[in-house]
Parts: sequence; C-alpha cells; structure tokens
Amino acid sequence: MTAAAIEERFRAAKRASRGAARLTSTQKSEALGAIADALEANSARIIAANAEDLQRGRENGIGDSLLDRLALDEARVSALADATREVASLPDPVGEVVRGSRLANGVRLEQIRVPFGVVGAIYEARPNVTVDIAALALRSGNAAVLRGGSAALSSNMVLVDVMREALAGLGIDRDTIQTVDDFGRDGATALMTGRGFIDVLVPRGSASLIETVVTTSTVPVIETGAGNVHVVLDSSAPDDWAREITVNSKTHRPSVCNSAESVLVLRDAAERLVPLVGRALQEAGVTIHGDETVASLLDGVVPATEDDWATEYLTLDIAMRVVDSLDDALDHIDTYSTHHTETIVTTDVRNAERFLAEVDSAAVYVNTSTRFTDGGEYGFGAEVGISTQKLHARGPMGLPELTSTKWVGRGAGQVRR
Amino acid sequence: MTAAAIEERFRAAKRASRGAARLTSTQKSEALGAIADALEANSARIIAANAEDLQRGRENGIGDSLLDRLALDEARVSALADATREVASLPDPVGEVVRGSRLANGVRLEQIRVPFGVVGAIYEARPNVTVDIAALALRSGNAAVLRGGSAALSSNMVLVDVMREALAGLGIDRDTIQTVDDFGRDGATALMTGRGFIDVLVPRGSASLIETVVTTSTVPVIETGAGNVHVVLDSSAPDDWAREITVNSKTHRPSVCNSAESVLVLRDAAERLVPLVGRALQEAGVTIHGDETVASLLDGVVPATEDDWATEYLTLDIAMRVVDSLDDALDHIDTYSTHHTETIVTTDVRNAERFLAEVDSAAVYVNTSTRFTDGGEYGFGAEVGISTQKLHARGPMGLPELTSTKWVGRGAGQVRR
Repeated sequence: MTAAAIEERFRAAKRASRGAARLTSTQKSEALGAIADALEANSARIIAANAEDLQRGRENGIGDSLLDRLALDEARVSALADATREVASLPDPVGEVVRGSRLANGVRLEQIRVPFGVVGAIYEARPNVTVDIAALALRSGNAAVLRGGSAALSSNMVLVDVMREALAGLGIDRDTIQTVDDFGRDGATALMTGRGFIDVLVPRGSASLIETVVTTSTVPVIETGAGNVHVVLDSSAPDDWAREITVNSKTHRPSVCNSAESVLVLRDAAERLVPLVGRALQEAGVTIHGDETVASLLDGVVPATEDDWATEYLTLDIAMRVVDSLDDALDHIDTYSTHHTETIVTTDVRNAERFLAEVDSAAVYVNTSTRFTDGGEYGFGAEVGISTQKLHARGPMGLPELTSTKWVGRGAGQVRR
Repeated sequence: MTAAAIEERFRAAKRASRGAARLTSTQKSEALGAIADALEANSARIIAANAEDLQRGRENGIGDSLLDRLALDEARVSALADATREVASLPDPVGEVVRGSRLANGVRLEQIRVPFGVVGAIYEARPNVTVDIAALALRSGNAAVLRGGSAALSSNMVLVDVMREALAGLGIDRDTIQTVDDFGRDGATALMTGRGFIDVLVPRGSASLIETVVTTSTVPVIETGAGNVHVVLDSSAPDDWAREITVNSKTHRPSVCNSAESVLVLRDAAERLVPLVGRALQEAGVTIHGDETVASLLDGVVPATEDDWATEYLTLDIAMRVVDSLDDALDHIDTYSTHHTETIVTTDVRNAERFLAEVDSAAVYVNTSTRFTDGGEYGFGAEVGISTQKLHARGPMGLPELTSTKWVGRGAGQVRR
C-alpha cells in the first residue's frame, strides 16, 4: 500500500515536472512571490504546527541546539518568505544556449540548458530547507520531492501544503512540490531508489546522512557536505596574513563546512608562527589540539591524537601540527582532507602554485580565508549546497547546477552518409 | 587476500593519478604515441593471447557475432594503434579556465578544468575498449582501472601490460593504467564500491550490464547506452524527408544505439506515409512490426505487441504505430523511450518547437536522421560514450566530460567580514 502511494506521488511529480519545465521566468517569479506571500499569510498555522514538533522534540529529549534549528517564529517565517522572494529574483538558467554550431551538413546544433525534471532532497530537522529546496527547484524549472527529518514532520507538512496551495492558486500544478515525509523511512528509501522518477537526489545534513544516501541510492546523487578544511602556514607566511587568515578561517562561523579544522605549520616557521597564531586563536576562544612540537611552543595545548587530524569539529577547536616540508603538508591533506577547501599562506610563488595544482579539493586558495567557499561569496546569488564530488558540480552550486542540458538539432532532411 | 590485492591496485592507481594530472599535453601525446607504437610492435604477442580467448570462447560455445567482436588480427591491432594516435592529437581539456572573476574583495577566482583522478570502466568482451578507454583517460589526465569481460581476459591482460610497459619506458608511472580483470567478478564489485579510490565509473555494454552497474555502484556512475529511438512522422511531413530520414535512421547502422527502433505516424498522414515509408523500409530489408492500422495499409507487417514498443532491436526490425495526435506521440515517447534520441519530420513550426521543447531526451531533432547523435558527428573528435543520464553529461561525451573542475582563489590576505 505504502509503496503504491509513494509511487503515485512520484508519478504526479513527474507529470508536474513537464509543466514546470515550460513555465517562463516570469511565471516562476510570480509563483515564488505567491509562495512567499502565502507563507506570511499562514504564519500562525505554520507556527502552530511547529509548536507540535517542538513539543514532541522536548518529550523525546532532543538537545537545545537541535530545538533551536527546528523552531519557527514569525520573524523566521518572514525570513523564509524573504529568501523565497530573493530566489524569485535570481537569473533563470533554463533555456541558456550553452554552445552551438552549424555542422558541416548544415544541421544547426545547440546545447540548451533544461531542468533536471524531478529533484529529490533528503535532509534533517530544519524546516527552512523545505522551503529553500522547493524554491530553488522551482526557479530552475524542476519539480521537487522532499523528505525532511521526522522531528520536523508537522512543520514540513504544513509548509508543503501552503506552497502547494499557492501554486494551485496561480493555476500551476500543485504536484510540482511534493513531500514523502508522511511515509517516514519508506519515503526516504523510495526516493533513493526511485529510478525513472527522481532525476537527481540532493542530501543535506550530517556526514552519516550523506553517507547513507550516497551508498544506498540507485538514482544519481550530488554529494554535499563535510569539510575537514586545512590551513597551511608556509615558511614564508607573513605574520599578519598567517594570524588573520587562520583566525578568520576558524572563528568567523565555526559551525559551517568551510571553517578550518586543522593548521599545518612548516617546521622552519614553527617557532615564529605557532606561538603567534596559536595565541591569537586562544584569545578568540579556540582550543588547540596540537602535536608535541606545538605543545612545546605554546601553553594550554590539548595533546592531539590521530582522530584529531580527521575530525570536522564545527566548534571552537582546531588541530595543529608541525610538518617538515610542503610535501608532508600535501601528504597530510591527501590523507585526512574531505576535499572541500584548503588554503596556504605563503609568499613563495613556487609553493603557491604547487599547492594550487596538487591539492585535490573543490576549492584551493592562496592567502585567503577558507570561508570564501560559498555560493554567495562567489556571486551566485543563492547556494544549492557545496558539492564535494567531482561529477556534475564541484564546490559551491548555484541554480545552473540544478539543471541538465539537451542537444537540439534542426535540419532540412539531412541523413548520415 | 583478494580484497587487499585489489585495494593495493586502487591505491597505486590513486597515487599514479596525481602524476597523470600534472603531465603536460606534450607528455601525454608522447605517451599515447609510445603506446600506439608498442601495440604494433607487440602485435604477435597480442594476437597470440587473443587466440587463447577465441579458443576458450569456441569451447564455451559463444556466438559468431561475439567471437567477431572479440577477435584481433594484425589489421585490428593497427587500427587500435591508429585510434590511440588520434586520441593523442585531440585538444587537451585539462587546465581550461571555465570561468573566472575578481571578487569584490580582490580575490581572483577561477574555475579550472582538472582530471577526475581515477576513471573506472566496466565493459564486455571487446578488447578494443581496453585501449580506447585507457587512451581517453590518459589524454584527459586520469588514471584508469579497467574491468573487461572474462571472455577477453587473455587479450586484455596483454594489452594492459603492453600499455604499462610503454608508459614505464617514458618514465611515467605504469600504475596509471590498471586492470582488475584477473580478479574476475570481485574486481567488478570492488570497482563499483571503490569509494575514495574510483572517482567515476563508466559502464559500456549491454543494457543489463549498465543496469547492474548503475544499481550496484556506490561510486558516481556515468550511465551510457540504451537507445529506444523514435522517428515521428507529422501530418505535414514531406514524402521525401519522411522516407529518407526514417530509412537512414533505421538502416544506416542498425546495431548502434542511435538507430531508430520505432516510427510513429500521425493518423492524418497514415494513408500517405505508411505505405510510402513502409515499402522503402521493406526494400531496405527491414521487418515492420506494426499495429492494426499499419497492417491494414501495408503488406508483410508482423503484428506488434506491447513488447515491440519497448524493444531496442539493434537489428533490421522496426516498430510502427499510427497515433491520433502529436500529444499521443509525445505520450508514447514518454512511456517507451530510453531518452537517448528522437526526431520529428514536419514542416509545421508549432509542432517542431513543441517536439523540441517537450521530448525529454539527450538529443531531439527536427528533420534530421537520428544517426547524428555521435561524438564524431558533433565535432568532438572522439567519443567517450553517449550519456543517457542528466547528471554531469548528457548525450555524446568528449574528452571534457572525463574531467571535473576545481575553484582556484588567489588573494593577498583577504578574510571574510
């Protein structure tokens, strides 16, 4: 019964995706505007549903930070509406002619950007993702099938209902936005194995959620996420850049994936930089997990274990290690990095270019903070996520990364000789 | 033991991929030239190994067409060498600046084309694919781990050995080209689940092989392949275009994926076009599997069953159906197509544009043969395969589709405010 009911929703999403693909930019902007207005108009209903989730969460003993992520109030609903209006103003990627040519036989060939069709999303207990993904999918001409965490079930069901009603009010197929939240785990499993219905699946959340989705799915997945991000301080690193870039990379917003988690200091510069950078970090409230050399140069260091090199803390903690050479730094990164973002502070052009060429990460920097790996910073207007895989999209993804292409050929009777 | 031995090869490939990524275009051309020369110089050894495969194949009773695909002689080895030299002359996609900008804070940001790293391939008993994929992977700066069919085991082992020796002779890491053929099914399974080692996996072969790879793999896969390709003859289709395009699409090379498998004729034109196009197909040796209307308008029609609409014949057979409207044609395609290539013959601009917009296939044409969906025809110089998925690449893939990108940022101490 459940399987059939889920498949019926997938079929409805697939049907709706054909209509969504043909909506003009203007129609999509209007739809997103209507969704934003509807969210605000239904604020009380949304907050009431959210209160049920919060109540259940408290009964189940979920932590304060999770409760905070889950909570919606009038200001947060307004922020969701505003974010939706911002998505409405983004350039529409659909219809872009990516390349084109006239073949020798006269056939006019164009590669055109088209929507994927149906975008699936699996994420955790953050109701804002429900609206965020639906809006991004719709702006790029896709239908969306959503599966949020069970902790946000009541909020998500109402948010989806409000968005669907807003679409229907404009004569747009409400099935363009679907949820399978009410099917629990079965909904998630169906999304991961929905070949023929789900064109691409985007997981958002913890490393374990992403790992489950990537290893279970038979539909194509865009892997987003984990950032065990490194700052390398070369022998030539100037004091001020070393200090400012390391502190900014760690402390500007420690809970996000582009924050630094490890600092590698070249041995030649250890005596100069470990105390200088270490104290600046400590003054900013950071706990340093250091190797023996670091501990010998700086007070208050927690001894680092092998685990520290591989840990994405997402807190005011950082691992610090002294390495003998740039080669050792590159080896360390190759062993422990999640290939998200790494930066080197150096004035040596050879070391800078080696680092940029040899570090195999989505974003590699010289003399900048790691915090720049972000769709907004890159000028994309919005961010679909940060891809850590190499297929399709790598690094910050904007709306074009939620599209595919098709080849369109126009001829006058040409056949192949 | 086997698992450890396979992992050791994967590790070696990963190590080698770092060197491969840094080879210049010139070095890669020289390496491919050396491989081509080595293939010719070792022709006798390759043919002797191939004879073992053929002998085993005959003993196992494999069919003549499979034996023919498997067989290598001096001319075919030379053709392999020539194909490798052609790959050497293709433009190197690595290092292309895809886009770039200067951020508001002065950071210079570039998106650069980089190799995937390690490309895996799983394919069937065609030893030419062994050389083909290795050459394309190397030209695009990747290491390759190959798994061919067991029927070609002896040939593949020697081909890989010859290629590895040629690399070593130039001082290039021989582990850039690997095989796991000698591990049988375990090798294939390891490739499909080699997360952290295999950056992308390309299956090549039958629909069932591709289905197995797509549903089993936990590494990213580029799905290539199956083509249940449609020709639609609109009411306005001119006689000559309808006849020539249909016959060319079916008969130019029936065994390949871009050949037509079904013709849909609009009812208004059925009396005119079914006999005209049907007889032309029959004169070209094609068996027509038709619905009742087709059978009433043409002699020698085999009654079509539901299965015929879904069949990729790859032979001189075609399914023919009369549909009431363009909508019905679009619905039929949506139900049965493998989303590879479809074409419409029409002079009605509204129908042409609806078809191009609404058919959800990798390539959609107006008034051209379906046979143009081909990397060579598109001007790519070589073809990695034809992707029927929407992620990463769709339609004919060239060398750039064997690469990823990375973001490179160069700053002067910028931090995020």
